[in-house]
Amino acid sequence: MKRFLDLADFSREQILDLLALAQSLQDHPQPRALAGKILGLVFLNPSLRTLASFQVGMSRLGGDSFVITPGQGTWQLETRLNAVMNGAAAEHVREGIPVLASYCDALGVRAFADGKALQSDLNETFFGMIDGLCDKPLINMESAMNHPCQALADWRTLDELRIPKRSKFVLSWAYHPKPLPLAVPAAILHMAAMRGMEVVVARPDGFALPPQIMAKARVAAASAGGSVNETSDRTEALAGAQVLYAKEWGSTLHYGDAQGDSRLRAGLADWCVNERWFTGALPDAKLMHCLPVRRNVAVADEVLDGPRSLVRLEAFNRLAVQMAVLHRMLA
Amino acid sequence: MKRFLDLADFSREQILDLLALAQSLQDHPQPRALAGKILGLVFLNPSLRTLASFQVGMSRLGGDSFVITPGQGTWQLETRLNAVMNGAAAEHVREGIPVLASYCDALGVRAFADGKALQSDLNETFFGMIDGLCDKPLINMESAMNHPCQALADWRTLDELRIPKRSKFVLSWAYHPKPLPLAVPAAILHMAAMRGMEVVVARPDGFALPPQIMAKARVAAASAGGSVNETSDRTEALAGAQVLYAKEWGSTLHYGDAQGDSRLRAGLADWCVNERWFTGALPDAKLMHCLPVRRNVAVADEVLDGPRSLVRLEAFNRLAVQMAVLHRMLA
Amino acid sequence: MKRFLDLADFSREQILDLLALAQSLQDHPQPRALAGKILGLVFLNPSLRTLASFQVGMSRLGGDSFVITPGQGTWQLETRLNAVMNGAAAEHVREGIPVLASYCDALGVRAFADGKALQSDLNETFFGMIDGLCDKPLINMESAMNHPCQALADWRTLDELRIPKRSKFVLSWAYHPKPLPLAVPAAILHMAAMRGMEVVVARPDGFALPPQIMAKARVAAASAGGSVNETSDRTEALAGAQVLYAKEWGSTLHYGDAQGDSRLRAGLADWCVNERWFTGALPDAKLMHCLPVRRNVAVADEVLDGPRSLVRLEAFNRLAVQMAVLHRMLA
Repeated sequence: MKRFLDLADFSREQILDLLALAQSLQDHPQPRALAGKILGLVFLNPSLRTLASFQVGMSRLGGDSFVITPGQGTWQLETRLNAVMNGAAAEHVREGIPVLASYCDALGVRAFADGKALQSDLNETFFGMIDGLCDKPLINMESAMNHPCQALADWRTLDELRIPKRSKFVLSWAYHPKPLPLAVPAAILHMAAMRGMEVVVARPDGFALPPQIMAKARVAAASAGGSVNETSDRTEALAGAQVLYAKEWGSTLHYGDAQGDSRLRAGLADWCVNERWFTGALPDAKLMHCLPVRRNVAVADEVLDGPRSLVRLEAFNRLAVQMAVLHRMLA
Repeated sequence: MKRFLDLADFSREQILDLLALAQSLQDHPQPRALAGKILGLVFLNPSLRTLASFQVGMSRLGGDSFVITPGQGTWQLETRLNAVMNGAAAEHVREGIPVLASYCDALGVRAFADGKALQSDLNETFFGMIDGLCDKPLINMESAMNHPCQALADWRTLDELRIPKRSKFVLSWAYHPKPLPLAVPAAILHMAAMRGMEVVVARPDGFALPPQIMAKARVAAASAGGSVNETSDRTEALAGAQVLYAKEWGSTLHYGDAQGDSRLRAGLADWCVNERWFTGALPDAKLMHCLPVRRNVAVADEVLDGPRSLVRLEAFNRLAVQMAVLHRMLA
Repeated sequence: MKRFLDLADFSREQILDLLALAQSLQDHPQPRALAGKILGLVFLNPSLRTLASFQVGMSRLGGDSFVITPGQGTWQLETRLNAVMNGAAAEHVREGIPVLASYCDALGVRAFADGKALQSDLNETFFGMIDGLCDKPLINMESAMNHPCQALADWRTLDELRIPKRSKFVLSWAYHPKPLPLAVPAAILHMAAMRGMEVVVARPDGFALPPQIMAKARVAAASAGGSVNETSDRTEALAGAQVLYAKEWGSTLHYGDAQGDSRLRAGLADWCVNERWFTGALPDAKLMHCLPVRRNVAVADEVLDGPRSLVRLEAFNRLAVQMAVLHRMLA
C-alpha cells in the first residue's frame, strides 16, 4: 500500500482485510515488524489522538517516528503555487515535503481545509499537491475533505460493538461556536455507507453536505446494500436510530463567509446532543463522536458520561487501525 | 507501583529501596528492561529537566515515549467539571487523559497549581481528577502542591554528598518577580523531614507555608527522628546550617491576589541568596535549588558558580531517580 | 571526535574521510552502530531539515534523541553572562546546557547570530559559551557564523555530481525582505575554498562578507590550490560559472542597523535568481541553495523547478553526512 488517503480508494474487501489485520496485531503483537522503519509526521494543524497514536503505533511495531509542526519550531510553510514568498512563510511545501519524505520510509500529513473556496477544498487541491510531491508511502492524517484514519477506527468500533450493518446510522450536525471543516462528516458518511448501513444525515438548512459528497456515498451505499438519505428534521432522523454520530461543521451555503455562517448558526445552539435526542431511537442507541468534543456545547455531559457513549472506544481504536495501515505499508 | 504522586504515600523503607534501585541501575545498566514499554508525557506547563530526563530515562531502559503539550500543537485542554466549553479549550481532560492513557503503559502529567484558591490547590483538585481518569500507572511530574521526582532526586543528592541526616536543612524563600507555586517547597520540606533532618523554613511574613503542609511534614519528621520549625529570621535560620535550599514561592496570605502578593514582595528583593547568607552557616554549607533559577534575582552568580552549589548535581540526579520509578512501575 | 563546530577545525583529509564514511554508511547500513546512544537537540531557532534529519540519523543508526525548544514548551533561556534575570528568561544556559548534556551522549545546538554587534558574532561569543559548558561531544547545528553540517552536505553534493574541483563556484547574494545571518555564506565560502574551487563571492555594495571570513577562506583556498575573489558585478562573476550558490544575508555595512540595511536592500529586489543569470555561465551550470528559500523572492520558480536545481539533493545529503558525524562521535 503506497497511499492511505480515502476509504473510497479501496474495495470493501480490502477494508475488511485491514480491519482483520488490526485485530490480528492486537491478538498477536509484532514488536519487531517495522524495525528500522521511520515515519515522518507533519502537522499543519493541532492534534492529540493522531499525534500520540501514530508515534505509539510505530513504537509498538518496533519502528520510529519524528514530528514536524510548521510554524512551531519549524518554518511556516507556503502552499500556493507560484507564490511570491514575501510574507510569513519561509519555506514552500514544494521543497519541504520532498525533503522530509527523503528522510523517512512513510509520511503522514495533516492539513485542514482552507475553508475559503468549497470547490477547491472538494478537489483536495492542497493534499493533491502533497501527493504529487511525496515519493514515499503517504497517509492522510486529515485533509480538506477526508479523515480515513478516523473512518477506519469508527468502522472497527461499530464491528466491535456488533452494530448490525443494516441498522440506522444517523450522522447529525452539532453546534460549535465556529465553522469546522467537512472532513470528518464526509469521511464518516462514506464509511457508514460503505459498511452498508441505513445512513441519514440530519442537519439544519444551510448545512447540507456538498452534493458530490452525498453522491459518492450513495454509490458506496448502493454497492454495499445500504442507503443514504438526508433531512433537517432531527426527530424523523433519530426515529429507530441505532447510532447517532454527532459532528460539528460549517455552513456549506455560506462556505468561506464567516459572517453568513455565524448568522445561520446563531439560532442553532439547541443542536447540542442530550438525552432527549434519543427519545425515539432504539433503547440501546449509541453516541459516537470523533473528538475533540466541546462538552455541553456539541454534546451534553449526560450523554458523554453515560452508557451510550462510544467516544473513548473510538479514540482507542485509532491506534489499532493505524497500526494495520502502517504494517500494510511498511512491513 | 501504580502511582508516584507524593513521597508521603511511601514508607521510608520504600523510598530507600527506590534510591537503592537508582544506584543499582547506574552501576549496572539495564538497557532492555523496558523494551516494548511506552511512556506518555503530558505537559500543561513548561519544562526542561523533566521533559528531557523522562524521555532519556525511557530510552536508557530500552523503552519509548511521546510528548503532548496542550496548547502547542495539541488542543488546549478544559479542566473544569461541567464546563460549557464555548471558550478556547477544544477538548476536556475527561476525554484527553483516558485516550492518551490507552495508548501507553504509563503516563506522566505536569499541571501547575491554578493559583487562585489555596484550598482547592491544597486538595490537588485537578491532579485528583487526572488520577481518577488514568487507568495506567501515573507519575506526578509536578502538581499544584507536589513534585515528588524533584524531592526524590534531592534526597539522592543529599545521600551522595553524605550530608548527615541530623544536620540542619534550611528551606529558604527567595525573591522572584512573580508568585510561583508551592509545589517544590512543599515537596522538599516533606522530603527533608522524612529523611530525618533538622528542618527550618525561613520565609518573610506573609509567605508561611500552609499549616496543612507544615503539619504533614512534622508527622514525617517525628517518625524519622528529625524536626520541623519555621522563622522569618534568616540569620537565626542559617546559624549552623548544613544545607540552604533556596526556593521562590507566592504569598500564602494573598494567595490568588496578584496585587496583594506584589505589594508584599516589593520590599523583599534582598532575599537573593549571596555569600553573606552563609556567614553563620557551617563552613562547607551547600546551596540547593531545583532549577530553573533566576541568576542574581533569586541566587547570586557568586553562589551558583561557587563550590557550595549543588544545583547541577540535583538536576543530573533527576534522571537517575526517575529511571528507578519507571523501572519499578514498568519492568 | 568531540566537537563538530567548523570545517576549518579539520584537515582536508579528515573531511574526505567523513565524506567516505557517509558513503559507506549509505552503501552498508549499520542499524545498531549507536544502540544505547542518545543525542540531545537544542533548537533556539526554527528548523526543518536539521530537526528531522538529526532525529532520523540517530534512528537509522539504532540510537535515540530528544528535542528541546526553549520558549516553546521549555523555559526561555538567558544567554548573557552576569545578567540580572528579571525579564522573560527563566533559566540560564549556564544551568540548562550542562544539565541537558548530562542526560545524553552528544548534544547538538542551534543558535543563530544575535545580529547586533558584528565582532561579537564573528567571535562566536554565544557558541563559545555553549562549548565551554558542554562536557559531551557537541555539534554546531548553525551558529552565528557557521553551519558546518550544511557545508559538509554541500561538499558531498558537489562530489556526487562530479563537479570538478577547479571549476568556478559563485556564491551570490540573493534578495530577502529581512537581513539574514552570515552563517551559511561564511560556511559555504569556506567549504568551496577548502575543496579547492575557484570561488567568487558576488554581492551588492554594502554586503561584502567580513574581511576575517574572506581571509580565512583564502588561506584554505591557497592550501587546496584554489582561489577566492569577490565582486559586485554579477555578470562578471557568473561568466563561465559551474555552480551558482544563492544565499540571502544582511548588510555588513549596516550590521545590527535594521533601517540602514532596509534602505540598502530596497533597490536590490532584482537579485532574485532567474534563468537570465545563467546567460554567461557554463551550459550545465547548477543552482545550489541551503533552503528554506523564498520562491520568486530569492530564486525564481523557473530555476528551482528546472534541471539546474540541486536544492533537494543538498537537503537529502544532510542526513548522509550527519550520520557520518554522529558515527564518528559516538560509535
